[in-house]
Amino acid sequence: MAGSKYAYVRNFELPDPLLPGTFMLLRLDGHSFHRFSDEHGFTKPNDSRALELMDHAAKDLMEQYPDIVLAFGESDEFSFLLRKSAALYNRRQSKIVSTLASLFTSSYVFHWAKYFPDCPLKYPPSFDGRLVLYPSAREIRDYFSWRQTDTHINNLYNTTFWALVQQGGQNTTYAHATLKGTFSKDKHEILFSRFQINYNAIDARFRKGSTLVREELPEKTTANDDGAATGEPSDSGAPAAVKMRGRTKPRTQVVVLHCDIIKDDFWDARPEILAD
Amino acid sequence: MAGSKYAYVRNFELPDPLLPGTFMLLRLDGHSFHRFSDEHGFTKPNDSRALELMDHAAKDLMEQYPDIVLAFGESDEFSFLLRKSAALYNRRQSKIVSTLASLFTSSYVFHWAKYFPDCPLKYPPSFDGRLVLYPSAREIRDYFSWRQTDTHINNLYNTTFWALVQQGGQNTTYAHATLKGTFSKDKHEILFSRFQINYNAIDARFRKGSTLVREELPEKTTANDDGAATGEPSDSGAPAAVKMRGRTKPRTQVVVLHCDIIKDDFWDARPEILAD
Amino acid sequence: MAGSKYAYVRNFELPDPLLPGTFMLLRLDGHSFHRFSDEHGFTKPNDSRALELMDHAAKDLMEQYPDIVLAFGESDEFSFLLRKSAALYNRRQSKIVSTLASLFTSSYVFHWAKYFPDCPLKYPPSFDGRLVLYPSAREIRDYFSWRQTDTHINNLYNTTFWALVQQGGQNTTYAHATLKGTFSKDKHEILFSRFQINYNAIDARFRKGSTLVREELPEKTTANDDGAATGEPSDSGAPAAVKMRGRTKPRTQVVVLHCDIIKDDFWDARPEILAD
Amino acid sequence: MAGSKYAYVRNFELPDPLLPGTFMLLRLDGHSFHRFSDEHGFTKPNDSRALELMDHAAKDLMEQYPDIVLAFGESDEFSFLLRKSAALYNRRQSKIVSTLASLFTSSYVFHWAKYFPDCPLKYPPSFDGRLVLYPSAREIRDYFSWRQTDTHINNLYNTTFWALVQQGGQNTTYAHATLKGTFSKDKHEILFSRFQINYNAIDARFRKGSTLVREELPEKTTANDDGAATGEPSDSGAPAAVKMRGRTKPRTQVVVLHCDIIKDDFWDARPEILAD
Repeated sequence: MAGSKYAYVRNFELPDPLLPGTFMLLRLDGHSFHRFSDEHGFTKPNDSRALELMDHAAKDLMEQYPDIVLAFGESDEFSFLLRKSAALYNRRQSKIVSTLASLFTSSYVFHWAKYFPDCPLKYPPSFDGRLVLYPSAREIRDYFSWRQTDTHINNLYNTTFWALVQQGGQNTTYAHATLKGTFSKDKHEILFSRFQINYNAIDARFRKGSTLVREELPEKTTANDDGAATGEPSDSGAPAAVKMRGRTKPRTQVVVLHCDIIKDDFWDARPEILAD
Repeated sequence: MAGSKYAYVRNFELPDPLLPGTFMLLRLDGHSFHRFSDEHGFTKPNDSRALELMDHAAKDLMEQYPDIVLAFGESDEFSFLLRKSAALYNRRQSKIVSTLASLFTSSYVFHWAKYFPDCPLKYPPSFDGRLVLYPSAREIRDYFSWRQTDTHINNLYNTTFWALVQQGGQNTTYAHATLKGTFSKDKHEILFSRFQINYNAIDARFRKGSTLVREELPEKTTANDDGAATGEPSDSGAPAAVKMRGRTKPRTQVVVLHCDIIKDDFWDARPEILAD
Repeated sequence: MAGSKYAYVRNFELPDPLLPGTFMLLRLDGHSFHRFSDEHGFTKPNDSRALELMDHAAKDLMEQYPDIVLAFGESDEFSFLLRKSAALYNRRQSKIVSTLASLFTSSYVFHWAKYFPDCPLKYPPSFDGRLVLYPSAREIRDYFSWRQTDTHINNLYNTTFWALVQQGGQNTTYAHATLKGTFSKDKHEILFSRFQINYNAIDARFRKGSTLVREELPEKTTANDDGAATGEPSDSGAPAAVKMRGRTKPRTQVVVLHCDIIKDDFWDARPEILAD
Repeated sequence: MAGSKYAYVRNFELPDPLLPGTFMLLRLDGHSFHRFSDEHGFTKPNDSRALELMDHAAKDLMEQYPDIVLAFGESDEFSFLLRKSAALYNRRQSKIVSTLASLFTSSYVFHWAKYFPDCPLKYPPSFDGRLVLYPSAREIRDYFSWRQTDTHINNLYNTTFWALVQQGGQNTTYAHATLKGTFSKDKHEILFSRFQINYNAIDARFRKGSTLVREELPEKTTANDDGAATGEPSDSGAPAAVKMRGRTKPRTQVVVLHCDIIKDDFWDARPEILAD
């Protein structure tokens, strides 16, 4: 066949399978989102539209990839947990990382106009991805604790910082200086005494980030179930009733929560996330 | 600091640097583009709008990443050559593969409406990426010969196939059967004798694919050169006059060619592509 | 400094750290040991001298590398389990695999004459090594079950095969044919009815392989403990009383067992092997 | 089959092929050879017996592995160059590194008594190995220049240092202080003026290290060539007349040189080393 004398170049592509029996954790991060958020006028310290758009893209990923059992997002980053036994793309690293980063980005651009109807996208944003393996449930728990602690620390800082700037009239240099060396309780105190802001009353989305899980839908009792869902949970994916091994699995949908994922409650209620 | 007891999870992220001194070849492939092209009514055997959109996304990548010295695209795939000495992201594999796949996808969705003004995007498309290292120029030549030969073989087949279907009235099963076991000259003959199509007169874009290279812009002679280009080569990136090491490098722009890249001429005229 | 213009070549050496928090399993296999055992007149089906020499080399490895918590050997192979938290050589793969393969081989050659006093080594033998990561205790249990099952299957076959040849007068081709398609109970029957061999009475070393573990030495009660052991367990390593974190750890020695490691008993009695 | 329920553990062994079309450079280093050389009374600054033993082990490797086209050794380290096209063990990294480290070590122990007839080996020595890929001939040249420059620097220092200690009566601390901040010419001067040592007259083995290459044997003219060599170049391997693709390749033997490998002469005379 023509071309066969060149086909040897395929031999330079080396296999990159990931170790079986381990959790895969994919984290996507916005590329140069400091500039991107400036150019598109994101509200400070948090822009609900931008965060909801991130959630939407993450939800699209979970609906397309059943191996993703949990996702957590804050700011311009999102983490996705793939089950231990996931065989997605034969666990080939580049294939997984590139495809998921690509789809997330695609969904982000695709849905942009829904969340920013008055602000056209000026240029195409991008996200980088990295995939880390974790051998045990303990490390997965600690990974998500690490991210949510980060959310808390950043958001408390940013909320106080922008209160000083926007309501307190400080310039940004001065505001940073004001906060230097302060502890959490100091920031709570600044917010409350100077700006009458009760930090704990702030939108949980900002304080806790977004946690996406699958939830079972209630059984449908109508006889006329033809597979079409009546209440679409999102425009990009219907709740799926997947047939596996001869029986119908429960219909699930992806839901977005803004709750604590550091304590045991969240995990005790969802043992399937860390199950084999 | 709060959160520090969880920070150990970062230690599970392993380094993935690519061997220095080798060419990096990144190939992006459309994910499930058979369905995607059907859903969006792509013209058969080739859809110029779709191909031009691919070229546009590839051009955006080259304008953003100076390490890319050559790109070649056909159908729903694009290959990018990064120079041997590229230090992009410290040659970290996941970072490079994910970021470039992400930006290409982003650009594809971002520019969609320009090329398909009457056909809104129905859902977000995605691309996978893989990165292969090649130690020498010989293999790079052969890689691109492999892809362009593939373009030729596929396009000749598809052109004949769709002529049989669209003009010859065969159904697709019958058309495949007609072509089974035929050689190139047989397909040329079918095209010419039955459909008066001279294959070699078909748009070079379809026969040769798209090759993107950087070309120097002519020196500007106006005294009033303030860095603003007069003739923008694309809406996403101005020709760049980059200052490096104390002197102004020539202004270049990315151009799209549809030419032979198997023979020596193309390479002899552009020795910088394979240079160290 | 002279030579510094060449030192860039070090940059081509890429890091190869192994995933933390996983068990490392190193297996060494004799290289061309079929020929090696022929040239040195190994007794068939098992040569006790050769097996004891393997055990000795394995013991040397365990005494030199405290991270090895378990070893299992049969024929010309040996498997070594390194604890999950092992930080040996910063978990660099090549360093670990090469050093341990080297030391095992070195010890094998060094002690040869003790086990083969009348048979000088004719040429230097070698072993290859491979390192596999396992995320959980379950897989480690199954790994060792896999190897000991292999020992059983091979030894039952070989014992019957060589009985047919050595005592039954069959040539090797005929003996293989005799055994083709037989089950375990058939081989037991052949051994017992034709050769009066009760397979279960055969030396446990041959049936169960060699399992090496660390065992605590009884506390010494003599006041005059100067660190010199009174009963040396081997000539290559004294039982070690290692001081760590301010207290004396129990003195241990490596012992060789020929016991079942598939059932729970072995593991229940030694929880430290699979502990974190 | 018994055992098959455990065999899944094999799936955790991941492929580790090395990039094709690149030179492999394996370097072996003695493990804790400072202590080893003390325990075995190596002569300072150089022990010819130890160096010749290293050469012997390296020669054994080259005779066993035709893919090794060049080796260079100094002190307790040895570097081996495998040809670009080497397909040894399908280029599996662990297999290559472990097997070659093992055989080198084995040979070292095996031949010990020939070089140290009056000094029995006290314990088994070991070597670690690392494998680095180089894409081009330039880097291979520079790698060997790097090692030979290192040989020169170390040997000049050590020669001067031990002259100060052994002949000059300085203690080691004082001798180090004497040499601190000195340049090459200062050391030459110290050697010559204080100890009447002309550095360039010192044994080339010490100054240049050992370089092992294959050299063609002169054609044998006797009619009675039955493959047995008349003059054995070493006790561990006869010169090989290898039949490949229907013709007899020239008979070669491995020879040990102590020459400059930084300048072009060495390489110009042996173009086959860096050839494809």
